[in-house]
Amino acid sequence: MPPSSDPSQLFEAARNGDRVALARLLSLVERGGEPSRAVAGLAFKSPGNAYSVGITGAPGAGKSTLTDRLIAQGRALGFNGGKTMAVLAVDPSSPFSGGAILGDRVRMQGHALDDGVFIRSMATRGHLGGLAVAVPDAVRVLSAAGMPMVLVETVGVGQQEVEVAAATDTTMVVVNPGWGDAIQANKAGLLEIADLFVINKADRPGAQQTRRDLEQMLDLTELSGPGAWRAPIVDTVASTGEGIDALWAAIGRHRQHQIQQGTLEAQRRERLEREFRQILVARVVQEIDGAVADGRFTEVHSAMVDGDLDPYQAADRLLAGIMDVNPDPPAAP
Amino acid sequence: MPPSSDPSQLFEAARNGDRVALARLLSLVERGGEPSRAVAGLAFKSPGNAYSVGITGAPGAGKSTLTDRLIAQGRALGFNGGKTMAVLAVDPSSPFSGGAILGDRVRMQGHALDDGVFIRSMATRGHLGGLAVAVPDAVRVLSAAGMPMVLVETVGVGQQEVEVAAATDTTMVVVNPGWGDAIQANKAGLLEIADLFVINKADRPGAQQTRRDLEQMLDLTELSGPGAWRAPIVDTVASTGEGIDALWAAIGRHRQHQIQQGTLEAQRRERLEREFRQILVARVVQEIDGAVADGRFTEVHSAMVDGDLDPYQAADRLLAGIMDVNPDPPAAP
Repeated sequence: MPPSSDPSQLFEAARNGDRVALARLLSLVERGGEPSRAVAGLAFKSPGNAYSVGITGAPGAGKSTLTDRLIAQGRALGFNGGKTMAVLAVDPSSPFSGGAILGDRVRMQGHALDDGVFIRSMATRGHLGGLAVAVPDAVRVLSAAGMPMVLVETVGVGQQEVEVAAATDTTMVVVNPGWGDAIQANKAGLLEIADLFVINKADRPGAQQTRRDLEQMLDLTELSGPGAWRAPIVDTVASTGEGIDALWAAIGRHRQHQIQQGTLEAQRRERLEREFRQILVARVVQEIDGAVADGRFTEVHSAMVDGDLDPYQAADRLLAGIMDVNPDPPAAP
Repeated sequence: MPPSSDPSQLFEAARNGDRVALARLLSLVERGGEPSRAVAGLAFKSPGNAYSVGITGAPGAGKSTLTDRLIAQGRALGFNGGKTMAVLAVDPSSPFSGGAILGDRVRMQGHALDDGVFIRSMATRGHLGGLAVAVPDAVRVLSAAGMPMVLVETVGVGQQEVEVAAATDTTMVVVNPGWGDAIQANKAGLLEIADLFVINKADRPGAQQTRRDLEQMLDLTELSGPGAWRAPIVDTVASTGEGIDALWAAIGRHRQHQIQQGTLEAQRRERLEREFRQILVARVVQEIDGAVADGRFTEVHSAMVDGDLDPYQAADRLLAGIMDVNPDPPAAP
């Protein structure tokens, strides 16, 4: 039987363990458009139980090697009731060229022949809302397909990547002794999203200083109260496997903490709301761009180019024509 | 007479050389809201003739020292019919914390007592559309106030900063021998926006290799045709002033090229259109966020949280209630 391209059929097949169907579903999600929406809708209505872990840090920090080690750990010990592992390796496009930056996926190929490991790269293609929406959709699809754990690894620490990595149940930020410019430039952002820090290549000089720096920053930003979580700092040498047991245990402790505090569901709901807002904005932008491309706004546009309307006036003029935010829309079915 | 806070009065004073009034106008622009719109509108209607130069590159590349040297050059030699120099030093907020990253402004203080130099830091405050809209507004205000040249320097190479630096007449990308992670992560984006490359600290090892790398990348992306501009690569040692004459000349050549090819006005118009779209999107987001905060969308929202609508369906439901993009809006006055 030739493989179907119908989202519902693919979805059923993926739920029954068909990895080819699962890969196709993720391709549909990545490409965006109607089929992507259909897939996302199916996954939303049949949620699984995957626990998601984001891995971010500067290029060269050793994220791929760490991911590789975590895969082995999950295969051996299991997590969240299962021993299969899914990985989304996120390569954002450049903001200008649309070209994807390729991460080093080579090390993960050691698991390529293992049926219990599902690895997938994702870039921004045509997906409405970009990676910030496509990746949560993809995680939901993997969850619906029965994956107990999904690792989401980003190439770098760009704003998009940080947002994507933060949209997971446990977010780990990987640094190296001495840090680097790329981390420094976004230190506050990384500090805010980190559920745990990994000092990888901790056998290099400067690891202790880096730990002190991180502790100091955490002291400054620490939340008080009995339910607060302070991000632990774990030393690893991913190339030798040193510290991986401790890292694995720290992920488990963070999950336990969330479950005990009842914050896991609340945080997932918050992320859903952010996702919804992103879809909403992307849809509006799509409508506006479509209308501009159709030449429907030519009068206002000409007036602006001629200098008769400033861009704010031109925007107001257009919005007066297209938006009415007063009424509550019709009730849900 | 106490200083006015009325945009029109401040604007007239700034056009008559009042630097305090000019600083206040830029504060209004930075803060956003109605006064900012008024200022932007006045500047749009009384355009000056400033030539804008964007300076971007990784933290530590030496952008502030280069800016300092360019200020001295402009003061001595003049540019675009004048010898005053304006600098906007752009510090974007972290995407998460709202805290501004502070650049090294110390070196520029050498010009602090010079009346012919106007230096101003800008962060994202409440401005609708963020720096991508606030900075072009600020450049327009400086232009209306009679500045012949405006340097726009960013702290790093984040997406926002790259966009801001690219929204100028000549965009220079500053690298160092060996490049760095921060540049690597956004190489394609930087290549696309660069009108000229500066290899600063060119007395360090690796400068020749960096030049070869850049030339090779430019070979791969070079446009053909008689009107095409190939970004020149200028070696500098900003700390000693070496290469600054060549850099200054390269900026002048790029400007001449644009004037001769007739592309200067076309590119400014394109930037205005991008700015307009950003304002439009920001306004729509503002409307949506306002409506969400008011609880006007509670039914749809609850249906999504309860799992009855997926986020795409919820977005569609809302948009059906608030948008109508079909009609061309009323004609301009």
